[in-house]
Amino acid sequence: MRKHILVSNDDGINAEGIYALVVELKKIADVTVVAPEKQMSAVGHAITVQYPLRVNPFYKNGEFFGYAVDGTPADAVKLAVKALLRDKKIDLLISGINHGMNTSINIIYSGTVSAATEGTILGIPSFAISLATYEPNPDFSFAAKFAAKLAQFIFRNGIPSGTLLNVNVPPVPESEIKGVLITRQGKAFWDDWFDLRKDPNGREYYWLTGKFVNYEHEDINSDHTAVQNNYISITPIHFDLTDYEAIGKLKKSGLEEIFKFD
Amino acid sequence: MRKHILVSNDDGINAEGIYALVVELKKIADVTVVAPEKQMSAVGHAITVQYPLRVNPFYKNGEFFGYAVDGTPADAVKLAVKALLRDKKIDLLISGINHGMNTSINIIYSGTVSAATEGTILGIPSFAISLATYEPNPDFSFAAKFAAKLAQFIFRNGIPSGTLLNVNVPPVPESEIKGVLITRQGKAFWDDWFDLRKDPNGREYYWLTGKFVNYEHEDINSDHTAVQNNYISITPIHFDLTDYEAIGKLKKSGLEEIFKFD
Repeated sequence: MRKHILVSNDDGINAEGIYALVVELKKIADVTVVAPEKQMSAVGHAITVQYPLRVNPFYKNGEFFGYAVDGTPADAVKLAVKALLRDKKIDLLISGINHGMNTSINIIYSGTVSAATEGTILGIPSFAISLATYEPNPDFSFAAKFAAKLAQFIFRNGIPSGTLLNVNVPPVPESEIKGVLITRQGKAFWDDWFDLRKDPNGREYYWLTGKFVNYEHEDINSDHTAVQNNYISITPIHFDLTDYEAIGKLKKSGLEEIFKFD
Repeated sequence: MRKHILVSNDDGINAEGIYALVVELKKIADVTVVAPEKQMSAVGHAITVQYPLRVNPFYKNGEFFGYAVDGTPADAVKLAVKALLRDKKIDLLISGINHGMNTSINIIYSGTVSAATEGTILGIPSFAISLATYEPNPDFSFAAKFAAKLAQFIFRNGIPSGTLLNVNVPPVPESEIKGVLITRQGKAFWDDWFDLRKDPNGREYYWLTGKFVNYEHEDINSDHTAVQNNYISITPIHFDLTDYEAIGKLKKSGLEEIFKFD
């Protein structure tokens, strides 16, 4: 039986990256698109609980393309699985193709990753895929082909339960790709600051800006370094945030005893 | 020298929980409040990059209480550390007191936890604290006293670097508290669904609802179970989402080889 793939993203349903992805996936499977109506970058794992959600059909080039949700990426996935596609089997969720890198600390701010996290929470094998460039009109075609290839690998082999894959594709021609590396979340980070400016009415406002810093240029096991060296980086991530090493340290520190109530 | 504590939350600067916390903390340290202007629950680790941020002084009972930011909890913390308090040492960040439990899967949706995560990313010892009840007007006073006690413990002992503490306090009188337990993130989850309704104009909308399910009633090491048994739960969490166990499995699965480009 033909497989069924749910597609979402955080750049919004009208983005180039999700379109390129869907065109390629339709060659190998049935595809349903449920994605945010608008650009939703850096929303983290937000869900909408205080407001209702609306769903509208979205057309592209005169054809039905998918469902636009006026919420976050996690909202779109939850609504797809629990309402719109409730009676359909979903074999795989793919979130992307994001326009921009989702490596290292960026993972925790990423709406793209959060859609795949929500899929995993709901028991669906899921991956997020990003094209590691901020150029205005990048070519998504190789990343889309790779997504289809990875989908077929997952149909055959599965993904460890409770794990999702965070995929970053270098923005270079296929001939320059060196291969695939299974990586860890790197320790690259934002050295950021705020610009303090005045609006046309003289009121102050702050705007976040910064530069991305990587001290792990030698370590190809870091997702960020792998991509910079033209490898496709695949990082298995999960949503158990417990720092198990710290549990022992804290128990030894006397924290439990000091606050003992009798 | 008197210590300096930065306080934020996700219920908004006007919430009861942050007020009770600040009153208690002022007894032991200097306190600066930088918090979202509005209620920001379930925003996950969102940051605002597409829009400017505004800051306004916020007064309570005729006195200056803190800075209100028209953004998310992570925005408020970043803006405090990188702009408003740039020249001041911050010894500790406390996020809360949240009105409602932040255990198990809730951690990844939690704005309260995200403020403490942002603090940790910026190198500040941080904890999130939540009162585990949804009753309309709970008594935050014991949780506030506990926060001050924990602050003093951290001033003496520190927190393992890169780790933050996620604290959940049971909503019972001090005399019924059984003690403190260092726990792990539990596996309790939302069994959720969407109500499909019609607005006054006949247009359909969806509203998220659900019930929280815990299959770990016997395991006091789960944050959720600990709180249900009247223990104060303290879970060390971090922001390295890598599933290290899965790395080996994926390498063995042949994923790197199948996609080898020569």
